[in-house]
Amino acid sequence: MDKIAVLGAGSWGTALSIVLADNGNKVHLWTHKQAQAEEINELHRNERYLDVDLPENIVGFSDLPKAITNVKAIVMVVPTKAIREVSQQLNSILDSRIPIIHASKGIEPGTLKRVSQMLGEELELYNAEDIVVLSGPSHAEEVALRHPTTVTVASLNKENAKVAQELFINEAFRVYTSTDVLGIELGGALKNIIAIGAGISDGLGYGDNAKAALMTRGLAEIARLGTKLGADPLSFLGLSGVGDLIVTCTSVHSRNWRAGNLLGKGHNLDEVLEEMGMVVEGVRTVKAAYQFAEEENVEMPITTGIYQVLFEHQKPKDVVEQLMSRSKREEMDDIAHLLYERYTN
Amino acid sequence: MDKIAVLGAGSWGTALSIVLADNGNKVHLWTHKQAQAEEINELHRNERYLDVDLPENIVGFSDLPKAITNVKAIVMVVPTKAIREVSQQLNSILDSRIPIIHASKGIEPGTLKRVSQMLGEELELYNAEDIVVLSGPSHAEEVALRHPTTVTVASLNKENAKVAQELFINEAFRVYTSTDVLGIELGGALKNIIAIGAGISDGLGYGDNAKAALMTRGLAEIARLGTKLGADPLSFLGLSGVGDLIVTCTSVHSRNWRAGNLLGKGHNLDEVLEEMGMVVEGVRTVKAAYQFAEEENVEMPITTGIYQVLFEHQKPKDVVEQLMSRSKREEMDDIAHLLYERYTN
Repeated sequence: MDKIAVLGAGSWGTALSIVLADNGNKVHLWTHKQAQAEEINELHRNERYLDVDLPENIVGFSDLPKAITNVKAIVMVVPTKAIREVSQQLNSILDSRIPIIHASKGIEPGTLKRVSQMLGEELELYNAEDIVVLSGPSHAEEVALRHPTTVTVASLNKENAKVAQELFINEAFRVYTSTDVLGIELGGALKNIIAIGAGISDGLGYGDNAKAALMTRGLAEIARLGTKLGADPLSFLGLSGVGDLIVTCTSVHSRNWRAGNLLGKGHNLDEVLEEMGMVVEGVRTVKAAYQFAEEENVEMPITTGIYQVLFEHQKPKDVVEQLMSRSKREEMDDIAHLLYERYTN
Repeated sequence: MDKIAVLGAGSWGTALSIVLADNGNKVHLWTHKQAQAEEINELHRNERYLDVDLPENIVGFSDLPKAITNVKAIVMVVPTKAIREVSQQLNSILDSRIPIIHASKGIEPGTLKRVSQMLGEELELYNAEDIVVLSGPSHAEEVALRHPTTVTVASLNKENAKVAQELFINEAFRVYTSTDVLGIELGGALKNIIAIGAGISDGLGYGDNAKAALMTRGLAEIARLGTKLGADPLSFLGLSGVGDLIVTCTSVHSRNWRAGNLLGKGHNLDEVLEEMGMVVEGVRTVKAAYQFAEEENVEMPITTGIYQVLFEHQKPKDVVEQLMSRSKREEMDDIAHLLYERYTN
């Protein structure tokens, strides 16, 4: 029985542990909370995050060095803001370059670094090229129930992606490979912006046409930014693009959608954050994407509009009117141009 | 006041007439039913299709030659199966090549022709290159209520697309242009296959992950077929691809979704068609796409699976299991390969 460490015992880390356990591995599920590790070991439950019984081959750890002793691979599912700190702790423990797969979504504010870049910077034995990202449309609750789910694993090093595919794939969890780490990471992180926009549209009382338009044109501008940065536009047509966008924007459980919905109904950002009482990842991501768009000189009208609603007290209805009255455009002109350049250079 | 003829007074033809009327045109809305034309003229209603009062500059006609006298453009919104017959009638009336925009979705069974191809074949004064297609995520009811809506107009002749854009664009109805008629027509027609699949998934009681996977991988195989036929894969990332897919698959009002839902719950095709009591366009489209895939030697596992459920009495659950246990794949490999060939040859 191989041993695999999963670092981060939230709902997604726990769900991925179940997939790995189903595939016959012994899973070392690490959390920094000792009580949570004990709950996992004594009751085979992780009540606060996921309402299912855990397989007995998932073992809770609160000691990081013990959790990664003799493991064949490490799955990182800690929040984006904890990535650097956990990586630094790993440096003093790791003595060989075992596969590292991360399943965290986000962009670091200020530096605009993606998770694989942060890992590559912090981990002494690794470069960003060695890291694998796992992303796709996947509510943790459904994965825990073994409902059919598909994800993409991407690494610049194709062999690493194949190792991750082999590790996770089973009859309820289908895994595709890709080498476009940039596109896969950007799709997963930036889709939260569009979820806020979809919530705003629903909050304003607009219909399915408006929401589909916002999702589609939002995805197009993410693809435009991504392609400019060097991603493959086809990745945005895939599971970490369209797929993740669909589950995030059409689920009323999405925190980002809920925040947007309150904004659309006329609340301002402070009221929304107070009412929700928790971090809304997408709000931070809007800021990062807005900064990205300025630096790269890429037109992102929907992101800009949401930025204006969040941080410049613009009324959502006025922003929608601005968007609808932009000058007449060709649908995919900019991306087509970038794509042509990529294939002909 | 310019005169525009809209041929076909169903819900979509009526909604498009409202857009054109809002833009200051006199609209000649043609129907072959005299009583319907009278209802439009006397009551300014088209009760059976759309529950709104019509602007007075929409005038009903049941006489085709009168309807197109002195019009500046023709909008064709008749069902796909009536396209050839109406075109033949137009031949004896048209004496100059005024712009023709069609908004019909479908593929002709047997010939596998798209609507612009059928129009190009039948209309003596026109080639397929002259025709404009209008497509995108657009419930007619919402367009009639002036809720924000976006569509794409495409023509091989860029100038024709711009004429159509100018005709329809207003502050509630945003119009993008494209030259990829093939991609826009295929997206609009083939998305009905995926809507049946999404209904099957929901009928089986699977969750959001499975439905998003089916929509994403379904779109990928449509893009694969489209790219093989010469379409631009980016069109499937656009309004007539992703956008139309989203409204069709997430609305319980979609006929195709409802048919799929009944199949997923264990009914067979005959029972489903009897229960629904009307034509389900997607069923015909599955047959056409299956034939296309065989002729072009393109792998379309989801379309094939739905074909097997519809016409070969396979159980939906068995088909899903087959799909989940396919060999390990790269996510966008085939499309990337086709693109590479296109740009390097």
